[in-house]
Amino acid sequence: MRTNYCGTINTRYLNQIVTLYGWVHRRRDHGGVIFIDLRDREGIVQIVCDPENANTFQIAEKIRNEFVLKITGIVRPRPEGTVNLALQTGEVEVLVDTIEILNPSLTPPFQMDEENLSEAIRLEHRYLDLRRPVMQKNLRLRHKVTMAVRSFLDQQGFIDVETPMLTKSTPEGARDYLVPSRVNDGHFFALPQSPQLFKQLLMVSGFDRYYQITRCFRDEDLRADRQPEFTQIDIETSFLNENQIMALMEGMIRNLFREAIGVDLPAPFPRLSHEEAMFRYGSDKPDLRIPLVFTELTDLMQEVPFQVFRDAAKKPDGRVAALRIPKGSELSRKEIDDYTHFVAIYGAKGLAYIKINSLEKGMEGLQSPILKFLPEPVVKAVLERSGAQEGDLVFFGADKSKIVNDALGALRVKIGHERGLIDSEWKPLWVVDFPMFEWDEEENRWKALHHPFTSPADGHEDLLVTEPGKALSKAYDMVLNGVEIGGGSVRIHRQDVQSKVFNALNISEGEAREKFGFLLNALQYGAPPHGGIAFGLDRIVAMMTGAESIRDVIAFPKTQRAQCLLTHAPNIVEEKQLRELHIRLRNPKEVISWSY
Amino acid sequence: MRTNYCGTINTRYLNQIVTLYGWVHRRRDHGGVIFIDLRDREGIVQIVCDPENANTFQIAEKIRNEFVLKITGIVRPRPEGTVNLALQTGEVEVLVDTIEILNPSLTPPFQMDEENLSEAIRLEHRYLDLRRPVMQKNLRLRHKVTMAVRSFLDQQGFIDVETPMLTKSTPEGARDYLVPSRVNDGHFFALPQSPQLFKQLLMVSGFDRYYQITRCFRDEDLRADRQPEFTQIDIETSFLNENQIMALMEGMIRNLFREAIGVDLPAPFPRLSHEEAMFRYGSDKPDLRIPLVFTELTDLMQEVPFQVFRDAAKKPDGRVAALRIPKGSELSRKEIDDYTHFVAIYGAKGLAYIKINSLEKGMEGLQSPILKFLPEPVVKAVLERSGAQEGDLVFFGADKSKIVNDALGALRVKIGHERGLIDSEWKPLWVVDFPMFEWDEEENRWKALHHPFTSPADGHEDLLVTEPGKALSKAYDMVLNGVEIGGGSVRIHRQDVQSKVFNALNISEGEAREKFGFLLNALQYGAPPHGGIAFGLDRIVAMMTGAESIRDVIAFPKTQRAQCLLTHAPNIVEEKQLRELHIRLRNPKEVISWSY
Repeated sequence: MRTNYCGTINTRYLNQIVTLYGWVHRRRDHGGVIFIDLRDREGIVQIVCDPENANTFQIAEKIRNEFVLKITGIVRPRPEGTVNLALQTGEVEVLVDTIEILNPSLTPPFQMDEENLSEAIRLEHRYLDLRRPVMQKNLRLRHKVTMAVRSFLDQQGFIDVETPMLTKSTPEGARDYLVPSRVNDGHFFALPQSPQLFKQLLMVSGFDRYYQITRCFRDEDLRADRQPEFTQIDIETSFLNENQIMALMEGMIRNLFREAIGVDLPAPFPRLSHEEAMFRYGSDKPDLRIPLVFTELTDLMQEVPFQVFRDAAKKPDGRVAALRIPKGSELSRKEIDDYTHFVAIYGAKGLAYIKINSLEKGMEGLQSPILKFLPEPVVKAVLERSGAQEGDLVFFGADKSKIVNDALGALRVKIGHERGLIDSEWKPLWVVDFPMFEWDEEENRWKALHHPFTSPADGHEDLLVTEPGKALSKAYDMVLNGVEIGGGSVRIHRQDVQSKVFNALNISEGEAREKFGFLLNALQYGAPPHGGIAFGLDRIVAMMTGAESIRDVIAFPKTQRAQCLLTHAPNIVEEKQLRELHIRLRNPKEVISWSY
Repeated sequence: MRTNYCGTINTRYLNQIVTLYGWVHRRRDHGGVIFIDLRDREGIVQIVCDPENANTFQIAEKIRNEFVLKITGIVRPRPEGTVNLALQTGEVEVLVDTIEILNPSLTPPFQMDEENLSEAIRLEHRYLDLRRPVMQKNLRLRHKVTMAVRSFLDQQGFIDVETPMLTKSTPEGARDYLVPSRVNDGHFFALPQSPQLFKQLLMVSGFDRYYQITRCFRDEDLRADRQPEFTQIDIETSFLNENQIMALMEGMIRNLFREAIGVDLPAPFPRLSHEEAMFRYGSDKPDLRIPLVFTELTDLMQEVPFQVFRDAAKKPDGRVAALRIPKGSELSRKEIDDYTHFVAIYGAKGLAYIKINSLEKGMEGLQSPILKFLPEPVVKAVLERSGAQEGDLVFFGADKSKIVNDALGALRVKIGHERGLIDSEWKPLWVVDFPMFEWDEEENRWKALHHPFTSPADGHEDLLVTEPGKALSKAYDMVLNGVEIGGGSVRIHRQDVQSKVFNALNISEGEAREKFGFLLNALQYGAPPHGGIAFGLDRIVAMMTGAESIRDVIAFPKTQRAQCLLTHAPNIVEEKQLRELHIRLRNPKEVISWSY
C-alpha cells in the first residue's frame, strides 16, 4: 500500500523507504540513468532508476509517459546542483528498488503540462485534461469551497434538505428542460430552474433555516459563460429581515474566502441602492475595483445648442452623463474610434469626448469636435463636476438612460481593465432597493425584476396597484468585482400581497392557481416571514481560481451547443424508448447520431 | 429578533425576558386564562396570556391553531401540579408581555399531532405534514447523516466532485429518464442512473479519492419502496484492493451510526460469501438479527420414496433444505396454511413440515403428513442436522434452488419477525465473492450481476471465456438487518479484460464502442486500479429513523404512480414547448391536466 503521495516527499523522509503510486509525467535518460517524474494528485517527485538494479532498469526502459506505476525506493537528497526549489519535492529524489507497471498508456493526444490547448481537444479527452495540475487544483478548491460553506451553515443551524429534480415548471423567465413521463401519458416533469418554491414551502413547514448546494437547469442559448446545468448555493431563513439576512450571508462569504483562499473581505460590505449604482456606474453590478465614476450632466444640457445632448436631456427617460478617463488625452484617434465601435454594441450612436490638454488655457486648452456646440459655462461645469485634470479625457453618453448606462458602464469596465485603472483587490458590495418591476417593451407589460415572490419594501404595497414602476422591493444582490455572485430577497408571506403582485404582473387568478396553487395554499396556513438568497457556485469558484470560464471549474461541462464532447450527449435513442414515453420525433429523418 | 427557539426554554432562563417566534400548536382557555402551546423546530413551550394584560389578551383571543406569532414575555416556573416532564420545556412557561400575529392560518386539514393520517392527505399538504415533529426529526437526522459522511470522507482525503445530470444513457438494466434537446433536434439527454462511468473517469484523471452525495434516476415501476429519484452516497478510490476499500467504508458507516444515532456497530463487520449466504439463509442480503439458519438436506434426499424431495435433490439445479422453527410445534393448522400460501408467492408448490412433539418417542413423537414417505434414518438425520428440540417444527423446501432459497428465505424473515425471533440489534455484514454473471432465462444470455465494469476475482479472468457462470467477481455488498444498504466492486482497469467481459455479456464491439467508447478510450491511457461503492442514503436514513417508507425521509417524494400530489407534477405543457423540443405527443387527445 502507498506510504505517501508523490507530492509530499521531502527532506523529512530522507533515508526512508517509500511506496508510491502515480503517473509518468516525463521520462528522461541521462548519463545511462533513467529519471522519471512521477505524478499524483499532490504533485511530482523525481524517481531515479540506476542500471545497477538490472531488473528494475529493464522495466524502466519500457516506461512511457502516462504509464501507471507502483514504485518502492529510498528517499535521498538530490546531488548538488540538481536541487529544484520550484518543486515542493525538489530537494529529494527516490532511488528505485522495485517498479511495477500497473497499466501502460497509449501516447496521449497532449502533454499534461502543455498550455494553450484547444478546448475541444480538452473536452473530448476530459479524463486526460483533468490530470493537468491546474484542473486538479480547480476541482479541489471547489471541494474546499463547498465544505467551507457547509460547515459554516451547519454551525449556524441551517439544515440541508434535498428538493426534487423531477418537478413542475416554475416559470421564472427561462425555458425549462422537460422530462416526459412514462406512467402519465402526455405529462411532463420539468427540471428545476431553482428550488425557489420548495424552499419557501420548507419555511412554511417550519424548518427555519434551509440550505442546499444543488443543480439547477436552464434551457437557454448559451451566450457568454453559461451552462445548461449549474450549481447553486441555495439558502432560506425565517423570521429575519433583509438586513439580518445580508449580515449572515456576508459572514458566510467572508468565512469562505478566508478558508478557501486566505483572503479577508471587508466587513461590512458597502451597500448601494440600485438607483445609485445605475447613477454612478451605469450598472447594477458595478466593479468597484475600477475607480471611474459617471458624472451626471442631464440637468446641465437642457438648453445647449448641441441637439444630441439637448434631446437626450429633455426626454423623460433620457440621460446625459460623462466618464472621466485620467490621462485619457493620450488616447489616439484610432483608440477613440475603437471605443466608439464598442459602445455601439450597446446602442450608443456615438461617443463624444473632450481632451483636456491644458487647464490653464480655458477653451483653447481643450480638444473636441463638439466644443463648438457647447456654451463655455457648460463646458466649465462639466470639467468641474467631473474633477478633470490636465491630461484627462472626458467621454459623453447622451441617449435613453438605458443606453447611456449600458454603453458608458461597459466602457468604464473596458477602459478600467485596458488602462490598468483597477485594483487587484476583492471589492464586494450589496446592491439593494431594486424596483419590484421592469417594463417589458416587447410584451408591453410589467415583469418581475427578481421573481414574483419578492416582497415589496415596507410601505410600498399600495404602489403595487397605483404605480407599479415606483414600487421598490426587499431584494438584494451580492456583487463581487463586477460579477453578481448571489441574489435574493425577503419573500411575500401573505396571500393578499402575493395576489397584488400577480395582478401587477397581469397574471390571472386562474393562471396563478394553475402554476403556483400549492404556494398560494401554503401561504394561507401560517407562512412565516421568510427570505433567502442563492449564490452561483460555479462563478464563485471560477473567480477564486482565476479561471477564464466556469467550464474550468466543472468536471464535465458542456459546450456552447449544450453538448458533452466526451460522452456524446445528447444522442439519439431507440424508437422503443420514445414509444414508452408516448412521444414521437417531429423530424425523424434529419437525425444523425454522433460517432466515434 | 428571536432570543431563543421555543423548544430550548428551560429553568436556566427563569426570570429572563425572551422573544420567541413560532406556530400555535394548541390554544386552551382555562379559568379565564389563555394557554398557547407555541411550536418551532426545536419543540414546544407553554405561553400564558393573563387577562390583566388587556391588549395582549385581546389579541390572544383571536388566535387559532397554526397562526404564526411573535411573543415576548418572561420565563417563570409552572405552578405546582402542572409541571410536564415529558416536555423539555415542561418545568417552565412564558408569561406573555406582547403578542404579534405575524400571519393567521386557515383551519388546517389535520392537526400537527394527529396520527394515522392518510398518506395522500399528507402528501397533498406536505408543507403542513412536514411541520409534524416526526417529520422534522427525520429530515434533521438526514442532514446530520450527510454532514457526518461528508466530514468523515473529507478527513480521509475524498474530494466531492459533481458529475453531470444531463448525460448519456448508461445502460445498467433500468429504464432511463430522457430529456429532449432543443438545440440538437432528435437528440436526448438521459438523467443518470448513477455516476458510475464518471466516477471511473475521475479515477483515470488521478483524483484518487472521489465522493458525491447525488441524485440518481430510474424510470422503473415503483414496486415496493422505490422513488423515481433517489440519493446515493457515491464513492470511488484508486490503488486500493477490495479489502482496503471495505475496511474504509466500514469505518465510514461505523462513524456515521455513532455520530448520527449513537449506535456502535461491530468491528469488523462479518463477511459471508455469496454462496454461503444463499446456503445458510437463502438470501444475498440475510437479516442476521434472525438466528434461524437453513439445514442442507439435498444429499440426504437422493433416494427417498417421497418423490417431491427426491426429484428436487436429483436435479442439477435443485435443492432440499429445512428451516427449524424453535417452539414451532405450537403452530396451528391455520398458521401453517397461511405460511404455505406465503411461500407460494415465491413459487413453492407446498410447505412440508414435521412437528417434534416429543424427542423420546422416536417416530411416534413426530407429527407430519410426509413422515410415511421418509425412511426413519433420513428423518433422524434431519432432526440431528437441524438440531431440533422437543416442541420445534421443521419446515422443508424442495424445488429448484432459486425457489427453495426465495421461499424459505422469505419464510425465515417472516417467522423471525412474527415470532419475535429477532434481536433488536444492528447486524451489518459484507456479502462477497459474488458470481460475475447470472443467467437471464428470458433473454437467454449472461447478465452482469453487478455491472459490466466489475473486475473478476484474481485468477478468474480465463473463466470469463471458458465458464462464465463460474467466474467470481470483486464485488461486495454491505447488508444491514436484511437490507442491502450499499454495493460496489473493484473495477476493471485494463481494456483487454473489459473486452472479455463485454464478450461474455454478448455485447458486440460496435455496441460497446457506441455506448462506452469514452470509457474504453480512457482505459487505454493509464487507468489506475480502482474501485468504489454506492450507498442508498434514503434507505439508510429510513432505517435509522425507523420510518416505514423512504417517503418519510424525503421532503417532497412521489407516489407509486410517480406523481407529486403537492405540485401536481408531472403535468401537461404547452404545445409551443414541445415544438421547440422537436417532439410531439402520440396520443394528444387522451391528455387531461390535473386541477386544484
